[in-house]
Amino acid sequence: MRIKPSIPKGTRDFTSEVMFRREFIFKNVKSIFKSYGYSPIETPAMENIQTLTGKYGDEGDRLIFKVLNSGDYLKDIQLDENVTSQNISNKIASKALRYDLTVPFARFVVQNQEKLTFPFKRYQMQNVWRADRPQKGRFREFFQCDVDIVGSNSLLSEIELIQLTDDVFTSLNIPNVKIFINNRKVLVAMVNKMLAKEYFNDIVIALDKIDKIGFDNVKKEIIAKGVTKQSCEILDDFVNCKSIADLEILLSDTDSSKNGLDDLKFIFDSINKIGLKSCEIVFNITLARGLDYYTGCIFEVITKDLKIGSIAGGGRYDNLTSVFGNNKLSGLGISFGIDRIYLVMEELGLFNDQIDKDTSVMFINFGKEEAVECLPIIQKLRKVGIISEIYPDSTKIKKQMTYANNKSFDYVVMIGEDEIKTGLISVKDMSNGFQENVTINDFIKKLN
Amino acid sequence: MRIKPSIPKGTRDFTSEVMFRREFIFKNVKSIFKSYGYSPIETPAMENIQTLTGKYGDEGDRLIFKVLNSGDYLKDIQLDENVTSQNISNKIASKALRYDLTVPFARFVVQNQEKLTFPFKRYQMQNVWRADRPQKGRFREFFQCDVDIVGSNSLLSEIELIQLTDDVFTSLNIPNVKIFINNRKVLVAMVNKMLAKEYFNDIVIALDKIDKIGFDNVKKEIIAKGVTKQSCEILDDFVNCKSIADLEILLSDTDSSKNGLDDLKFIFDSINKIGLKSCEIVFNITLARGLDYYTGCIFEVITKDLKIGSIAGGGRYDNLTSVFGNNKLSGLGISFGIDRIYLVMEELGLFNDQIDKDTSVMFINFGKEEAVECLPIIQKLRKVGIISEIYPDSTKIKKQMTYANNKSFDYVVMIGEDEIKTGLISVKDMSNGFQENVTINDFIKKLN
Repeated sequence: MRIKPSIPKGTRDFTSEVMFRREFIFKNVKSIFKSYGYSPIETPAMENIQTLTGKYGDEGDRLIFKVLNSGDYLKDIQLDENVTSQNISNKIASKALRYDLTVPFARFVVQNQEKLTFPFKRYQMQNVWRADRPQKGRFREFFQCDVDIVGSNSLLSEIELIQLTDDVFTSLNIPNVKIFINNRKVLVAMVNKMLAKEYFNDIVIALDKIDKIGFDNVKKEIIAKGVTKQSCEILDDFVNCKSIADLEILLSDTDSSKNGLDDLKFIFDSINKIGLKSCEIVFNITLARGLDYYTGCIFEVITKDLKIGSIAGGGRYDNLTSVFGNNKLSGLGISFGIDRIYLVMEELGLFNDQIDKDTSVMFINFGKEEAVECLPIIQKLRKVGIISEIYPDSTKIKKQMTYANNKSFDYVVMIGEDEIKTGLISVKDMSNGFQENVTINDFIKKLN
Repeated sequence: MRIKPSIPKGTRDFTSEVMFRREFIFKNVKSIFKSYGYSPIETPAMENIQTLTGKYGDEGDRLIFKVLNSGDYLKDIQLDENVTSQNISNKIASKALRYDLTVPFARFVVQNQEKLTFPFKRYQMQNVWRADRPQKGRFREFFQCDVDIVGSNSLLSEIELIQLTDDVFTSLNIPNVKIFINNRKVLVAMVNKMLAKEYFNDIVIALDKIDKIGFDNVKKEIIAKGVTKQSCEILDDFVNCKSIADLEILLSDTDSSKNGLDDLKFIFDSINKIGLKSCEIVFNITLARGLDYYTGCIFEVITKDLKIGSIAGGGRYDNLTSVFGNNKLSGLGISFGIDRIYLVMEELGLFNDQIDKDTSVMFINFGKEEAVECLPIIQKLRKVGIISEIYPDSTKIKKQMTYANNKSFDYVVMIGEDEIKTGLISVKDMSNGFQENVTINDFIKKLN
C-alpha cells in the first residue's frame, strides 16, 4: 500500500538548513544559561495525567494531548449510553504529553529533592505539545527553553533573570526588545482599591487581552461580569499609570512592603545602577499573565519590530510545588519561545552572517579502487576537524560537481591515476574556481 | 489535592549530573557525524498513524504509543458490543509517537525530496517511544542517534559507516568493540542451499536468537515449523563458517555477485587496507536482524565487556521509501543506542576524567546592597566564559559555603564592606582552601 507522506497538523519537519539555525539559537541560549550557574535537566515527554490536569485552567486541560493505554485498554470498561469522550478519557489514557516545562519541573523538584542542592537552578530545553489551533508562530509541537530557580524568594533572582534575558537577546542581535514587568501583588492591591476583590480573576483575564481588544472592550467585559462603573474609573487611573513613581502615588495609602511596590522599586533601582546591554525594562500595569500559579513579579518580553506576541515570559510562583507535597519552595522562572525567536530572526535577516560553517572538502569518485585510496586521506582531514567525504558513486564528474555545489563544499579534491602516481592531489577552490596540484600535507596545512 | 510525584513506567528524569554525561556522548557523536558530511534533521514526535503501522511487524505495531484525538473523539462512533480495543484504536487515535527514526526518515525523504540533495546524508538524534516491558537497558522513552545515506547503492557507504562506527567508539574510549557484519543476500543463498526457501522468515527469526537460546533450540524451533533435518545439516555447515573464506567454499556453486559474497569481500579487503582505530570487524553468519526492511549488508555492534545486547545496529534497505511513493532510493543506516552506550560507559567508569568542567565562581551574599555591588563584577566574569553567580539570599555564611561545596565551585569570592572600600576582593580557592585578597582584574587574569 502506498501512503501519501504527511505529518500531523501543527507539527513540522526540520531540514538541515533550519536545524543549523535552530542550533545556533540553542547554543547561544545554553551558554548564557550555563554562565549564570544554571544546570540542565530533562523530564519525560509523557507524564502521568494527574500530574498535568488542573494546572493550566479548563482551557489548558482541553489542549493536553493524551496517550492511549497499551494492550486491551477497554477490558474493564462498561461501554453504555453514559460513556462520553470526556468521562472515558482518564480511564483509557493515563498518560499525557508535556504541556509546558514548569509543571513537570515542579514535579521533578519534589520527586528528586534529596538529590538536589537548593536553591536549585536549572535550565530545560525540550519540546512541549498543545492541541491548539495552529497559526503563525503557534504550533502543536514547539520548543521551550526554561530557566528556573527554586528555594529562594530573594529579589536578586528577579534581577538575575532580567540580566540573563538581556544577555540572551543581545547575543542573538535582536533589536528593540522590551522586558515588561509587573507584580501580581500590585494587581491585588489595584483590585482591592477598586473594591472588586471577588472579580480578581475576571479583571486580570480581561486586562491580559488589552493589546488585542483595547481598553474599552476590557471595561465592557468586566462590567458584564458585574464590576461597577466606579470601579472601572479607578482602573482608568491605574491603566494610565506609566511608571513606578505614578504607581507609588496611587498606592500611597496601602502597605508598600505588601503591595509589590518595594519589590519593583528595588528591581528598577538595581537594574538602573548596573545597566542592561540592549533590552529596555518597562513597567506595565496591564501585564497580568493568564496562568494561575504566579504570585509575585511577572515578565513578558516582546520585540517592537514584529507583531508575533511575546517571545519570552515568566514570573514568580510561591505554591507550585505544594501540590506535589512540598510547601516551602518559592520559585522564579522565565521561558524563551524558541520557535517565535526563530521567526523573528528569520524575518529580520539575523541569521545571515552569524552561523559558522566548518571547512568542507569533497573527493571526486573515479572508481572503486581510486576511492579506497582516498579514504586514509579523508580520515586525516576529519581528524583535524574538516568535514570531508567522497562521493559514493563513480558517476559522471558533472553530476558529482553539482552535488558539491549544492552542498556548498569549500574544496573539491581529485585523486585519479595520475595523482596516485605523482603523490600530488588536485584541489579546486570552489569559491573562485582556482585549481592547483599540491601535496596532501601542504593542503592540510593550508586548511589549518 | 496533593499528588504523589511520579512518572510513567519505563521513563526517566535526568538530573544535571546525568545530563552532563549524556551531553558528552552527544557532543562526541555529533562532531563525528558532521565530519563525515552528515547533516542534522528532525521530525515530529507524533506521526500520522498510517505512517507507522505495518512497518515493524505485528509485535512492533502493538508497541506503538497512540495519541488520543482531541475534542469529542467519540462523536461519530457507534459504541456497541462489536467494539474492541483493537478495532476502535485507529478511529479514536489518528496519531502515534515515533517508534524509531528510520521510518519517519523515509517519510521525510519522500515528502521533502524537492528540497534535498541526493545522495542525502543525514543524522538524527531524537527520542523514540515503545510500549515494551522495561528492563535493564530497555526503556519506554529512549534516545536514538541515526546516520543514514539514501540515494546510492555504493559499497563505499558501508565502508564509511564502519569507519564512522569505529570513530564513535574510539572517541568514547569504549574498549573491545566488535562490529558484526553479515549480508541478507548471504542468508537468502544459505536458505536456498538448504532447499528451505519457503521458511526464510522462520529461519532468520530463529537464527537471530542464537545467542539467547543456543543453536540446538534454534534448530528445534525451525524443525517445528517444518524445516527438514537434512536442511538443518546444511545450516550446521553455515553456522560453523567463521570467515569469508569459509563462506566462499560453501557458496562456490552460486553466483558470487548475487549472493552477497562480492560485497563482503570488497568491504573486508578495503577495511583491512585502511585499518580501524579500535574496533574489530567480524563476519557473523548468524546475524540476521529482525526488521523486515533490510536487503543487503547488516551490522550489529557489541562490546565484549558488558552483556547488554547491541549498542548499535543497522543495514542496507532498498525498498523503504517505496511505501511513501519513491521506488528509486537505496538506503543504508546505522543507529546508535545512546542509553545503552551510557550504561556501558558508567559501568566501565569511562566518564570520570573525560568531562570538561568550566571554571566556576560563587559570590557570598552579605546583604542586598553589597550583592548589587557584586553584579557588575559577576557580569565581567561571565563575559569571559566563567560560570558565576551570587548566592541569592544573605543567609549564614556556613550555609552559603555548603551550597558552594555541593555545587563544586572552584572559587568563592567575598565582597563585604571592607572589600568595597579597598577595591580588593577576597578569593578562596576551593581546591586547597587558600584565601587571598586581589584586585578584580588580577583575579580575571588568573582565571584566564
